[in-house]
Amino acid sequence: MNIDGKQAAAELRVRLAKEVDALQSERGITPGLTVVLVGEDPASQVYVRNKVKQTREVGMISNEIRLDESTTEEALLTILAELNIDDTVHGILVQLPLPKHINEEKIIATIKPEKDVDGFHAMNSGRLLNGEKGALVPCTPQGCVILAKHHLGDDLSGKHAVIIGRSNIVGKPVSILFLQENCTVTIAHSRTQDLPNMCRQADILVAAVGRPEMVKADWVKPGATVIDVGINRIELSDGKTKLVGDVDFNDVSPVAGAITPVPGGVGPMTIACLLKNTVEAAKIYGK
Amino acid sequence: MNIDGKQAAAELRVRLAKEVDALQSERGITPGLTVVLVGEDPASQVYVRNKVKQTREVGMISNEIRLDESTTEEALLTILAELNIDDTVHGILVQLPLPKHINEEKIIATIKPEKDVDGFHAMNSGRLLNGEKGALVPCTPQGCVILAKHHLGDDLSGKHAVIIGRSNIVGKPVSILFLQENCTVTIAHSRTQDLPNMCRQADILVAAVGRPEMVKADWVKPGATVIDVGINRIELSDGKTKLVGDVDFNDVSPVAGAITPVPGGVGPMTIACLLKNTVEAAKIYGK
Repeated sequence: MNIDGKQAAAELRVRLAKEVDALQSERGITPGLTVVLVGEDPASQVYVRNKVKQTREVGMISNEIRLDESTTEEALLTILAELNIDDTVHGILVQLPLPKHINEEKIIATIKPEKDVDGFHAMNSGRLLNGEKGALVPCTPQGCVILAKHHLGDDLSGKHAVIIGRSNIVGKPVSILFLQENCTVTIAHSRTQDLPNMCRQADILVAAVGRPEMVKADWVKPGATVIDVGINRIELSDGKTKLVGDVDFNDVSPVAGAITPVPGGVGPMTIACLLKNTVEAAKIYGK
Repeated sequence: MNIDGKQAAAELRVRLAKEVDALQSERGITPGLTVVLVGEDPASQVYVRNKVKQTREVGMISNEIRLDESTTEEALLTILAELNIDDTVHGILVQLPLPKHINEEKIIATIKPEKDVDGFHAMNSGRLLNGEKGALVPCTPQGCVILAKHHLGDDLSGKHAVIIGRSNIVGKPVSILFLQENCTVTIAHSRTQDLPNMCRQADILVAAVGRPEMVKADWVKPGATVIDVGINRIELSDGKTKLVGDVDFNDVSPVAGAITPVPGGVGPMTIACLLKNTVEAAKIYGK
């Protein structure tokens, strides 16, 4: 069966809308998300538009700061310093990638960890790793866990989660999240020996490598839950293009117990979890 | 064969003594470690004495601040604030456990991350997880990797490291370190199903659970490298006590390719890596 990411994201947004209501009536706080976009990257523009729309739909305040491609690093740092001390802003998101003359690491390190709703700041990574309270956790990994639970129920204890990929954005944080859920966790990657055999042991298989349709049916234990984080555009024989995941969907689907499609799986969860992080930030740190 | 932790620690100290010399002659910096001990815990006293002795042996400055059991949290925080801005202090270590009236988490969070030679501050955990420069990494996990390389050589790429235990002090950071070494990494724990079968897949097996002699011969793949982090005191039939690891040494030793004994394995590496962290802190952040 397919795990419907669109539906799961819609359900999450409904829950968030209620939490936003409660925050407003009980504490007079309306969670606010400010997205900073530098330059004219078309994919980023579409993405930011969706973020703004969904942020408003759940009753939150959405601000956009659009800056010219030529904006200096110093100017961006000044803007972030202002957002860091603005009590109406609970979440700050600087849309990546940034123009090459701006140091991304420096920008991420400048965002106040308590407003870093992307969860990329080292303080948030560390709080996640240590299981400390108040961590803001990267969005896509949270989406993966929610979708796995959508099929398997809330108790993942004892399940073997195999994660292919070890990026800071997905592979490593999603490994820590499944560990917190009391899964046995294996992190596999390009250097892993006999990767298919390792994957076949998975009760939950997460593919996050960016290689189109790499995971085949014989990599999957019958009945396993397959979470496909990949979004790859491939060219078809007729010259048209198509979005596919890191999992060969048609091959794997008959074997898997459940699988997230691409598109319509993990993708829709990412923005929903960004809203979730903003609500969390407002709840924990809001004044 | 046994992996000799005492010898590896001695070799590391020789290397560190040279680095201390170089730091002094090239930059005029003598790395300084300040250990803060609150109360009269006898085990901590012995441990601190060893730290002081070894710190001096490699040519570093060692300071000890001994505080009465009744010291308030506020007083300790004030002392840490002073150490944080003292340029002659490159490493600060607050000996744990602290008396119950002092909040350990708050103390750890107050130490400047750049001087946190225990590597417990969330900024250091996050820098470790993200692979950022300037992370100070917990000592025992570093010792585990050095001992594994002592037997296997520097290239651990593609080896399967299975870690039993998921503590903040050992299990989680050592998993990240082996991942950085391009190992496939599995984190197993009390909820893992068929733990012996998982362990039998390990090329490198790290036991860090605190359960005396839990790992038996049939948990170990012939030829595997076994790193035993456990230090458990057990009572013998004659009423005497004995230190044993988490691995049943006599049972496993004939099967393993190499194994760290307890005592004399991982233990001696921990202080040596503390000195290493202090030298690193002085190198990276020293003025």
